[in-house]
Amino acid sequence: MSRVVVAIDCMGGDHGPVITVPAAIAAVDADPDLSVVLVGLSDTIGAALAAAGRTESDRLRVLHAPEVVAMDEPPANALRSKKKSSMRVAINLVKAGEADACVSAGNTGALMATSRFVLKTLPGIERPAICGVLPSMRGRTYMLDLGANVDCTPVQLLQFGIMGASLVGALDHVDAPSVGLLNIGVEDIKGNDTVKQAAELLRLSGVNFYGNVEGDDIYKGTVDVIVCDGFVGNVALKTSEGLAQMLGVVLRREVTRTWMTRLAGLCALPVMKAFKRTVDHRRYNGASLLGLQGVVVKSHGSADAFSFGFAIGRAVEEVRMGLAGRISERVNQLQRGAA
Amino acid sequence: MSRVVVAIDCMGGDHGPVITVPAAIAAVDADPDLSVVLVGLSDTIGAALAAAGRTESDRLRVLHAPEVVAMDEPPANALRSKKKSSMRVAINLVKAGEADACVSAGNTGALMATSRFVLKTLPGIERPAICGVLPSMRGRTYMLDLGANVDCTPVQLLQFGIMGASLVGALDHVDAPSVGLLNIGVEDIKGNDTVKQAAELLRLSGVNFYGNVEGDDIYKGTVDVIVCDGFVGNVALKTSEGLAQMLGVVLRREVTRTWMTRLAGLCALPVMKAFKRTVDHRRYNGASLLGLQGVVVKSHGSADAFSFGFAIGRAVEEVRMGLAGRISERVNQLQRGAA
Repeated sequence: MSRVVVAIDCMGGDHGPVITVPAAIAAVDADPDLSVVLVGLSDTIGAALAAAGRTESDRLRVLHAPEVVAMDEPPANALRSKKKSSMRVAINLVKAGEADACVSAGNTGALMATSRFVLKTLPGIERPAICGVLPSMRGRTYMLDLGANVDCTPVQLLQFGIMGASLVGALDHVDAPSVGLLNIGVEDIKGNDTVKQAAELLRLSGVNFYGNVEGDDIYKGTVDVIVCDGFVGNVALKTSEGLAQMLGVVLRREVTRTWMTRLAGLCALPVMKAFKRTVDHRRYNGASLLGLQGVVVKSHGSADAFSFGFAIGRAVEEVRMGLAGRISERVNQLQRGAA
Repeated sequence: MSRVVVAIDCMGGDHGPVITVPAAIAAVDADPDLSVVLVGLSDTIGAALAAAGRTESDRLRVLHAPEVVAMDEPPANALRSKKKSSMRVAINLVKAGEADACVSAGNTGALMATSRFVLKTLPGIERPAICGVLPSMRGRTYMLDLGANVDCTPVQLLQFGIMGASLVGALDHVDAPSVGLLNIGVEDIKGNDTVKQAAELLRLSGVNFYGNVEGDDIYKGTVDVIVCDGFVGNVALKTSEGLAQMLGVVLRREVTRTWMTRLAGLCALPVMKAFKRTVDHRRYNGASLLGLQGVVVKSHGSADAFSFGFAIGRAVEEVRMGLAGRISERVNQLQRGAA
């Protein structure tokens, strides 16, 4: 397999190096063709390496960056005044060709703004988008945009469809991934003008367009890719997180109610573990920032090491499959077709 | 308690009179001050009454309506050419003062369009909205709009907030229900222009405005009422339905995998039942069409009799609490305040 170098923003996320460094170590141990650059406060990273009984090496380099972007920092602020942040330095490595990809669990808005500023968008792409993956009854559903763009034009939604299909093609080796447009009904007359025009563009685009889908189709697995604007996508994602969390809390409350229910819960433990494994959001961690001249993957801020490892794996896979090139090619094809 | 008459569109929903008639019977049996008018094809309704060992009575009247609005019929079509539909006739009863409320499990778009045409909106209300209720970790969250209005102005979102707060005040006897605005971040700078302006209006309105909330706040129970446009609200609702359904399917699959897991599942049955009861969507059935000169409640199309009964109960409660009057009063107060 081809050698891949991933720059890791070790300071991002709720936990920082305590999580990101062990995840990086596990990743290089599992993949002999992977090297990582651990970017951030070298003291803290060194301590995390030492805690794992490791030292810096060729495949586990440390690069000091003196600043940290806060999780709630306004993106414009991070872009303007945190030029030596671990996030910025990690992205710079991709721009300079010293790394093939950047992975960060940091501030999403800042990551998108910085990536866009440093790496630039691919030719023909108006706006990059955040593409996440969710479990479904039939496997997994990719969804974009998850929050980078609150207002989208029909052309931008079309481009999201193209980018999403390219991602699924690269990661899941699907030939012509099906693309659905998120709407509030399956009929053509449903939705606002933007969505109606986007449907028209997608229908004519050569993308394998399924048509309109609804919120429940995310989990039914009706299509491979669901396209929506970042406002709607973010609400759908957060709503799902909230519901899953509530169900977990209510279930735990029921199980611990009496000694009878505790016993019952104990008996059902293997079932619950298998259940949790299937829907474990940690296995779906890693959202791709698509449409950039380079691979950038965003991990959930609260990710643990296991979960952060999936985000690293996603970045490696995108590099190996030449994702950015695939997207460019597809956009160019369509533009030649339209011309 | 005051006498209430509810007109029931017996033909609406996926199952029609098989569900709606038994639910109506149970409702009048439970509430001596409730009468219902069963509207629809009198033969089918008569058969459903007979199947329950009942006949028509003063409190269980049958009113024949020869037409039925199909679940997938375009609302404009239903409005124009189904003037003798069970839905239309039931709403007409409210307009004529012969019923206090209408309950239907039928076509949502047609129900909204017909209600608006026949009953008219309350003075000062620009657009009626659909308000549903969802379980939360702290009780329940009301949310509107769930799909009647795909595009909303800031003023309309403000009015949704007022209507939702009036509903919670009436149903849950809360003095100053908290209202949140659905957004993709809690900071004021988040979201599109419409949402930002709506936040400003809500802040100045005298409504107990909490500020921005995110998708997961629906289930956290951060506020009593969540306001959003109908596109976003519908996606959030359907996404939740889809996730809950998938989790149910995956759990059943895990439980029935081997005889060991079946046994474990059997042991855990009381826990699962208690769990299901807490989050049983049937107990939350019944979405209120707010902003009309009359009470109209929409049941889920797939509701069973138990579930449809909750929608009837909701309508009765709204009538007894004088909901339409409360909304009018609140809107007038605000307009006087603004003048």
